[in-house]
Amino acid sequence: MPGTVYLVGSGPGDPELLTVKAKRLLEEGDVVLHDKLPGPDILESIPAEKREDVGKRAGGERTPQSETNARLVELAEAGNDVVRLKGGDPFVFGRGGEEMQYLSEHGVDFEVVPGITSAVAAPAAADIPVTHRDHTSSVSFVTGHEDPEKDESAVDWEALAETGGTIVVLMGVGKLPDYTQALRDADMDPETPVALIEKGTRPGQQVATGTLDTIVDARDEAGISPPAVTVIGGVAGLWSEDDETKGEDA
Amino acid sequence: MPGTVYLVGSGPGDPELLTVKAKRLLEEGDVVLHDKLPGPDILESIPAEKREDVGKRAGGERTPQSETNARLVELAEAGNDVVRLKGGDPFVFGRGGEEMQYLSEHGVDFEVVPGITSAVAAPAAADIPVTHRDHTSSVSFVTGHEDPEKDESAVDWEALAETGGTIVVLMGVGKLPDYTQALRDADMDPETPVALIEKGTRPGQQVATGTLDTIVDARDEAGISPPAVTVIGGVAGLWSEDDETKGEDA
Repeated sequence: MPGTVYLVGSGPGDPELLTVKAKRLLEEGDVVLHDKLPGPDILESIPAEKREDVGKRAGGERTPQSETNARLVELAEAGNDVVRLKGGDPFVFGRGGEEMQYLSEHGVDFEVVPGITSAVAAPAAADIPVTHRDHTSSVSFVTGHEDPEKDESAVDWEALAETGGTIVVLMGVGKLPDYTQALRDADMDPETPVALIEKGTRPGQQVATGTLDTIVDARDEAGISPPAVTVIGGVAGLWSEDDETKGEDA
Repeated sequence: MPGTVYLVGSGPGDPELLTVKAKRLLEEGDVVLHDKLPGPDILESIPAEKREDVGKRAGGERTPQSETNARLVELAEAGNDVVRLKGGDPFVFGRGGEEMQYLSEHGVDFEVVPGITSAVAAPAAADIPVTHRDHTSSVSFVTGHEDPEKDESAVDWEALAETGGTIVVLMGVGKLPDYTQALRDADMDPETPVALIEKGTRPGQQVATGTLDTIVDARDEAGISPPAVTVIGGVAGLWSEDDETKGEDA
């Protein structure tokens, strides 16, 4: 009997932010395929004999997606229930869609189990709501680390600025100077608050705050390094507002 | 000793998609303040004597936010650990930000516990990834049911169309004709795939699919009613593509 592949989100890294279902599947599954993104606290809670790291190959380079896809099919066809564990949510910049399509094409049963995306949880861990009635009517998630193989359109920073909503950038530490410049070029107010949250919800969490103009310096001063999430918009400045503004809903 | 208020996301409705932490806090908390949004399966698992419904008042009208805020402070000051349970995530169109600010102003200890937003989980339950390398480099969440008290700018559908990314509309069943029209007026391709997912992850889940041009009819034919999530973009048409396209990553 072939097994099932569960595409499971591990959430932002705090083991208590796994879903009840993810926790159960990690206990019941025969094999867990993962990379480093779920983080040490979650990975170390999984018995070593069940774990298979598909993040890096022996030489240190990234395992090609095609190899991971083939391994999922191989394991399921051999009768294993496989947990494909993804950091955050499998469908929010997690390539879960591609793996799902591959499994479907190869007739392998699959189920998607969402996880809490860091795009929401990392800001929340710094008490920053990605939406707020007084500040924004939308929130957009983008990745700062675009796929180099991608021939499709890049992120349209000008249109994102135009929405007036909160912008959350995943994997956006290195390219911070580029996209803050792109947003200023798109006439976004240089005083727009920005927050960078490193290791949100995990031990060692660190936050740097500033504006479109100052955040690169703030990043360097605080020594923020990946993984980190960038929040751009009024919500990132909630705690620096004066008391009168903070009290207006009271 | 005053208690703590936990602003907790309940996720999309499936009790197994609660986080481990949410489940623990529901067991340990003294009082659970909630409305109907977490859904019957989760609410019925909470002992009745702990539950306090702040969704509707006796007359059937909505409890004002100010009353809920005051009640949270009152309960915490009386020494209770309070769980303020929110459907989805407290910070994704959940007014968690406002409650957090009120608690902070009143010197009440609080903690935010994120939940899986329906904006990601409802599409996932229909095997729709909100991002996909081949289709989109961003995803934006908006609410179709804007706050009537709001004097700030409304959703900028033109800018959202311009991003080229996936658009997910929460609470967008009633206003579907309005915003699909707004997007067509913004020159979005009328053939853009659209999916509507009612009760995503819950018993009675139902999906209607179509395009910007046909989705209103598809909604009426399928009898989709709230709560539902709308997904607009190439990812909503993943399963209607021809085999060649679906196989291109294989």
